[in-house]
Amino acid sequence: MRWARIQIEHKISHGIVEEDQICLVEGGIFDKIDLTGQKVPIKNAKFLTPIEPKTFYAAGLNYAEHVIEQALANNREPNIPDEPHIGYRANNALIAHNESIIKPSDSSEEFQYEGELVAIIGKEAKNISEDEALDFVFGYTIGNDVSERKWQRDDRTMWRAKNTDTFKPMGPWIETDVNLDKLVTTVRLNNIETISFPTNSMIFGVARFISAMSRYLTLVPGDMIWMGTEGHSKNMKVGDICEIEINEIGTLRNPIILGN
Amino acid sequence: MRWARIQIEHKISHGIVEEDQICLVEGGIFDKIDLTGQKVPIKNAKFLTPIEPKTFYAAGLNYAEHVIEQALANNREPNIPDEPHIGYRANNALIAHNESIIKPSDSSEEFQYEGELVAIIGKEAKNISEDEALDFVFGYTIGNDVSERKWQRDDRTMWRAKNTDTFKPMGPWIETDVNLDKLVTTVRLNNIETISFPTNSMIFGVARFISAMSRYLTLVPGDMIWMGTEGHSKNMKVGDICEIEINEIGTLRNPIILGN
Repeated sequence: MRWARIQIEHKISHGIVEEDQICLVEGGIFDKIDLTGQKVPIKNAKFLTPIEPKTFYAAGLNYAEHVIEQALANNREPNIPDEPHIGYRANNALIAHNESIIKPSDSSEEFQYEGELVAIIGKEAKNISEDEALDFVFGYTIGNDVSERKWQRDDRTMWRAKNTDTFKPMGPWIETDVNLDKLVTTVRLNNIETISFPTNSMIFGVARFISAMSRYLTLVPGDMIWMGTEGHSKNMKVGDICEIEINEIGTLRNPIILGN
Repeated sequence: MRWARIQIEHKISHGIVEEDQICLVEGGIFDKIDLTGQKVPIKNAKFLTPIEPKTFYAAGLNYAEHVIEQALANNREPNIPDEPHIGYRANNALIAHNESIIKPSDSSEEFQYEGELVAIIGKEAKNISEDEALDFVFGYTIGNDVSERKWQRDDRTMWRAKNTDTFKPMGPWIETDVNLDKLVTTVRLNNIETISFPTNSMIFGVARFISAMSRYLTLVPGDMIWMGTEGHSKNMKVGDICEIEINEIGTLRNPIILGN
């Protein structure tokens, strides 16, 4: 089942995606819901991020080639993590499907996409084994972990490299039924494919992260975990359109515009 | 004015602290409010964190002696930051005044407090000058940035060193009227003072951080910024009681108990 969150005039509604329409419901994704009978064509919908997350977790370095590529770019020895250490991103940076990524006027040309699987937590999770961890996932969506690499190298934290407003496109919706092993992440810049990789070829998978995290912290419904990206990313320029597709989920599409 | 958030049976109420009582109100701190006439003695109140923050920002290394002390502990050259780079903490770790800090059974003896001033944002802030920045602060409270130093050294991120459940006591309330230059932060472990420092002797003050952050990101009401701590922290043991006082605000008190 696919869950979207859309805006109709000044009202926020949840809906279930069926073919080319969104069937609106009363209530949110963690509530008991009723169909309203109202339907909105996908092509007319103003999408919102499918949730407003509680805590925004990010795996960071979680695919082997990306770890090596980032180490080379930073003139360091590649260091494949031996434990799943989670990181953080911030809600201010979130935008929805079709919204514009704003490239700050003082950012460098190393302004790059990162196509990522996003796991949405559906049930409170504390001290969960790896075997049972996926039962605590409500569903999956797509994230673009937009990164300014010069700031990422130079700043003490990744606050503006990763969390400048609009740097975290997410959506278009949450898919509750996926086969993780069959997912493929494909990134296209201006309709030209730049990378395609098996989504689940992570160093540490979703279950391993949830289990490890829940040893020390309580995950709650509405938390989300961005699972990292693979390989080398290309630069995005003002005027480009970046699309990230994960089969079985959908395609997240965002244009790049100039900020001030 | 002092704003508290307390729990009465299963209900969450906001209130204004007057002497030894909390005068309950209808509505929250950013709403138009009405006094209910109901009063709760402070000594009987079950405090909650004074807000549930939107984004939990933390300045990290922001006092000179603490920067030097942490560098020595990590066998590095001290590196005083030349720009205010903000970091992040996570809401799962928050607990209120009087609640227990749970020391995990596998944590090391380097389990330490950090007494911090916390600024609560009251108005949306984007591209704000340093001169006007403090107008966007609703008020101030006290935070204890509990840290497990071995994990802080060894892990790739600070997730469990800083954000294990209960590692972020905060409160007891928000004080809206303070003179930053007159504040003194004092930490006591089992009633013995371990450090006292001028709160505003930061490398970058509240106004500088808000101005710098708002160049790239939008601060919203309910965001909070933990401003860092000074000097060397002592270890806390199970059974200890840690108090952090900032004159003009109050005292945040939390016992340490053993986890599993």
